[in-house]
Order: sequence, then C-alpha cells, then structure tokens
Amino acid sequence: MLTIESPPAEHEVMAEGLESVVAASTRLSHVGGEAGQLILAGYAVEDLAPHASFEEVAYLFLHGRLPESTERISFARNLAERRALPHATVSLLREAAVSKAPPMDALRMAAATLSLGRKEDPLEDALTAIAAFPTIVGTYWRISHGEESAPIRTELGHAAHFLQQLSGFEPSAERARALETYLNTVCDHGLNASTFTARVIVSTRSDLISAITGALGALKGPLHGGAPGPALDMVTEIGTRDRAESVIRARLERGERLMGFGHRVYRVRDPRADVLARAAERFYTRGGNRRFYDLARSVETTALRLLREYKPDRRLDTNVEFYTALLLHGLDLPADLFTPAFAVGRVLGWSAHCLEQLRDGRLIRPQSVYIGPRELRYDTSGVAVS
Amino acid sequence: MLTIESPPAEHEVMAEGLESVVAASTRLSHVGGEAGQLILAGYAVEDLAPHASFEEVAYLFLHGRLPESTERISFARNLAERRALPHATVSLLREAAVSKAPPMDALRMAAATLSLGRKEDPLEDALTAIAAFPTIVGTYWRISHGEESAPIRTELGHAAHFLQQLSGFEPSAERARALETYLNTVCDHGLNASTFTARVIVSTRSDLISAITGALGALKGPLHGGAPGPALDMVTEIGTRDRAESVIRARLERGERLMGFGHRVYRVRDPRADVLARAAERFYTRGGNRRFYDLARSVETTALRLLREYKPDRRLDTNVEFYTALLLHGLDLPADLFTPAFAVGRVLGWSAHCLEQLRDGRLIRPQSVYIGPRELRYDTSGVAVS
Repeated sequence: MLTIESPPAEHEVMAEGLESVVAASTRLSHVGGEAGQLILAGYAVEDLAPHASFEEVAYLFLHGRLPESTERISFARNLAERRALPHATVSLLREAAVSKAPPMDALRMAAATLSLGRKEDPLEDALTAIAAFPTIVGTYWRISHGEESAPIRTELGHAAHFLQQLSGFEPSAERARALETYLNTVCDHGLNASTFTARVIVSTRSDLISAITGALGALKGPLHGGAPGPALDMVTEIGTRDRAESVIRARLERGERLMGFGHRVYRVRDPRADVLARAAERFYTRGGNRRFYDLARSVETTALRLLREYKPDRRLDTNVEFYTALLLHGLDLPADLFTPAFAVGRVLGWSAHCLEQLRDGRLIRPQSVYIGPRELRYDTSGVAVS
Repeated sequence: MLTIESPPAEHEVMAEGLESVVAASTRLSHVGGEAGQLILAGYAVEDLAPHASFEEVAYLFLHGRLPESTERISFARNLAERRALPHATVSLLREAAVSKAPPMDALRMAAATLSLGRKEDPLEDALTAIAAFPTIVGTYWRISHGEESAPIRTELGHAAHFLQQLSGFEPSAERARALETYLNTVCDHGLNASTFTARVIVSTRSDLISAITGALGALKGPLHGGAPGPALDMVTEIGTRDRAESVIRARLERGERLMGFGHRVYRVRDPRADVLARAAERFYTRGGNRRFYDLARSVETTALRLLREYKPDRRLDTNVEFYTALLLHGLDLPADLFTPAFAVGRVLGWSAHCLEQLRDGRLIRPQSVYIGPRELRYDTSGVAVS
C-alpha cells in the first residue's frame, strides 16, 4: 500500500470500500445479516415474493404501499403498454447481435436509448425501463440466435411476458409463477453497488434512464451480479448422484471453493435462498426436469455435509446463487441470461431508490485523499507545445 | 425527516451525501480547497494545463508520467486512430437526432455502444472512449442541425479535431490551444460525483465503457455538470457596459444569486478560474470577439464590486463556470455544448480513475439504514395471486 502523504482532515473518515458507512436511509429494503432477514418495503421476503405478482411488488416499491384492486389493474395496464421498444432500440440490438455483443452489454446499450421520443419524468422513466427490460432481453436473445423477435403481448403478466419474449410462447402458469417469485425475490437488496450507483447518479438531479444505465454497468461486474454461472457447473460436472461425494471431496482436498455456498452479508442462511428453494421445488414438482432437480439437491446435501467436515468452524449454507441457477435453469434460461434476468428484477429496486433519492436525498460526493507527488514542473522547453 | 427506527451498529458511520468520507486514495488529482490549489498528477494546474497538449496530459493520467518524445508520438497516433465511430453508433446518433434527443443523452447512448466490435480491455476501452467522444459530440451536433458529419482527420491534434468535428473546418492554432487548455483544466477534479460513479461501477470489476457511460449520466445532472448555461446569460442580458451596475444591483436587491460566482469546494479563488481567464484573454486578444470579452470582464468587475458591497462577510470570487462559458462561447460553442465539452475533457479523469480503481481498489459497497415498517403481512386472501 502507498504511503499517505496527505492524511485527511480530522473530521474526515477514511473508508475505502465504504463498508461500514451508511450512505442512505431507505424505506425500500432491510438486509438483516445477523438475523437472516430481508424486508421488502415492510414485508418479509418469504411472505411477499412467492405470493404477490411482480406488478404488485412494483407498485409497492414505487408508491410505498400495495395497490387497491383498481389501482392494480390500471398499473398493470400502464406497465404493459410500455413493453414495445423504440425503433432505434431494436435497430441497435440488431447491430449488437451482428457484433456478438454479450447480453449485458446489449442491455446496457438498449437501456441507454430508452429516453428516445419521451420527455424526462422520474416515474415515467421508471415504468418505461421496468416494462422494457424483458422485451430488450428477450428480443436480443432471439435475434442473436437467428430468430425473429416475439410479438408484444400486453395481456400477459410481466413475468409471463418475459418468458414469452424469450421463447416465443406463452408460458404455463407454473413457469410464470416461478419466474415471478424469482423477480420479486431479487428486486431489491439494500445499498448494493448497482443500487448505490443509481443513487449517486440521480443525486446530481440527473434522470432515471441515465441512473439505470449506470446501474446496469455495475451489475455486470463479476463482484456483483456478473458471474452467476458457476453455481450449477458442479452439478452438471457431477452428472449422477453417486459421483457427488468423490467430486466434492476432491475439490475440498485441493482447497477449492465450492460455488453456490456462502454469502458475504448473511451470517446465517440467506432468506432469499429459502424462498427460491421452495419455488424451485414447487416448480420442478409440477413439470420441470425432476431428475435434474433431484441431482442438484443431492449434490447440495453432500456439499453441506462435506463442508461441515472440512470447515467445521465456518457456517457455510447454500446461497442464493445456487437456487437462482436451479430455478432459472429449470425455466430453460441458459447461464448467459442469468445476469440479464437479475437485471429484469433489480431494475425495480434501482427505480424505487432513484425516486427515494430524488425525494429525500442530496448530492452524494465523497472525498478522495491525494497520495501522489506535488512539486513536479512541466518543462516547456523540452516538450513541443501544441 | 423520518424517524430512524433502526440506528446503525456502533462501528457504522452515518454519512448521507458522504461529504466528509474519504472513499478513495488517488495519485490523479488533489483539490486543495483551502489553498486554492489543484494538482493534476503532480503538476499544478496552472503549470500544466496551458502548456501541455491534451495528448500529453492523457498519457500522464493513464501512465503516471509524462511521455518521452517517441512515446508521445505513438500515443497520439494510437489515439487518433480510434476517432472513427462504429457504424451502429452513427446510425444511433441519426435516430437520436430525429427524436431531438438532448446532446448529453445522445452522448450517453453513443458511449454505451463503444464496446461494439471490440474485446474488453481497460486501457483500450479508455483510449477508445477518449478518442471517440469528440467525434460523437461533433457528429451529433452536425447531423442534428441538418449537416453531414465531418470527415475524420487523424493528422490533427485531439483538441483541434474536436473543433473540426463540430465546425467542419480545421481551426486556427489559437482556437485549438484555447480548447486544449480548457480540456486539460477540467480533465480531473478529485472524487466528484461522476468520477465516483465510474469508480463504483468499475469496483465490481465491470468494464470501462460501462463505467464511463454511467459517469456521463452523473455529469448530466444539474447539480454536477449539467447546468453550465446561466453563467453568461447575465452578460448577454446586460448587453452594454453602462447597464452592468443597474442590472446587477437590481438582482442583488431582489436577493438573487449571481451565476458565475462562488464555488462549494474552494474557500479562496478556484485555480481553474485563473487558468481559464488567462486562456480566454489570450484567445480573445488574438482574434476572438474582443467586444464581448471586454463586456464580460467589465460585468465581472462590477459584479465583484457589488458583491463585496452586498455580502461583505462572504468571499465570492468569479468561478470556473464563468470563464468556461467565456472561453467556449468565444470558440463558437453554444451553451448546449458546454456539458458535452466538459465530458470530452473529463472522460480522461474517469478513465484514469477506473484504471487506478482496478489496480488498487476494492468493491465500493456502502450500507443503508432501513427506516420503513417491518411487520406488514401480505394478505393472500384479498389479493388475487398471479
């Protein structure tokens, strides 16, 4: 580490990483790491996510309470009518497909265009982005695999529409419900790096499309949402139940980390893992690939048993990535779409945090400390000017 | 303000706005607010900005020292060869022009596409964005005013190329030098909101195009770079010297703020103001609209005299926005292009901060404190599920 030549003034706090700094108060979510608790706008995640529609959760996040029956209907219709993309956005996705842009890059490019043809307005921007994300992800997936984009179906629910935009077909109620539970579960999670990015951007009184585009950039990073693939790789590698013990034991003997286990924030079990585990079980029981599900759960059981054996002093539970992968895999989403699907859910949290920041927050502008040289002189004689 | 139901744990620091929190150490710039000092990678702004080429400053920021003669030549060539935009980017700018998108929105959209056809690489991404920004801003300006985009001229310096992309003509050496001094002067300024945004995004190990796109969103906000217009409005309104005193006095009597005076960070004179004032004087003396310059300086003198009279307890100096507007106005940039021109300079700072963050930094992930309700129950009987 470099020497600090210029220590900050006494009233300043050194906090690179900002881990223990509270940068916002929020009514949107509470991550109770000690208690294994996640509250979403007042509701425990396990109470809200498996039962509410995504539209209800969206209303709750954007308006601060669940909708009444008529509000629910008009809100859902408003959202559905924003599903179609601007012409320029579709053209751009076609060009991105030709360049084989990764889906998250294509989503960032497309999101950046969502202001086209519209007047800036925080709530309208939020609704437009939330409604358009499934269309963008589905359209890009289809055209980059040589298929035509699927028609917009305004009569479908948000989650069902996302699956229809991907596959071209209206999904079963079970599939839509499974995805809906996933989207609700991941829609917000405190001041993670992408949500914080959105709040910093909008704290300058910038617009929500700019903030959401920036947040996508942060979500893409492998330290945040960008590397969800490996959680199921071990399951696929193991292939059949009887190989689970030997493969996992070999990994632990080599000192390798088991992907899919452990989370930085929760000291006890991540409550989202339970919600997604139950959703996955329910979905696979009613028509998913039950064999794969049984294999995955068997791998999990073996992994947890061996982790207790090899790391008895650490509490390592199955994490949210494992069940996310299990659920999305069951819905036929390839690993390349895991982060975009995460974004389809999380864009709601970003939007709500932006509205909250605009309402209550002020400019977020920390300090830096300068640790470089100070007395260098530019030599105008030796270097040609201009 | 809302009651805090859940105060943060004792080791946590409440710091909404993060004003007194040091979130990064940097070798890139030092904003000495008390001393009226700005150090750019070791050099005083007044030593470096008026004399160095933009390419030299870019090399300094990206590589940590000024280039040797051969490095300077190959670096400038490398940058110049990245000026052309991807086909998809130009198409998108055309569509944005049809929709009459504001220039900063168009720049954000175009910046988001700069990964097309390229492999991710931090330094390459930085060079590509730095080189492409003048082309984007110039191309968009021209096509949104019904003109063809200007041809890429790789033999021009960076600043000259920006002016050529805007006007279609190769600028005089004086004009290029004036713009170059401006770009150098604004290329970095501590951990402002856009630079911080870029660092947060890249702290997830995301890519620089994502980070730069996000930073643009923050720069756009009126609390950051997004509202530079009004500084010269008063000069234009006053029109002739003899009206200065009465117009300004009337404003101060009405308790109005004088745009162009005062800055949050510097308690004494902003050192950038001096650099830009000298650059403006030099440029206007050698061929700009001298009458406008004299009027502006006369308005400034009167404003400072009257500010001392009306607010004797406050130190209010002419700020950087005033001289920026004076300089850019002299270069025939309309106020709509002031923030994009700011971005053309600042993208260098964003890029260098991203490289530094990738090298030395870790995930930036602050905490939030939850102030909402906790015990709400979702009523599955009253609300239709799915």
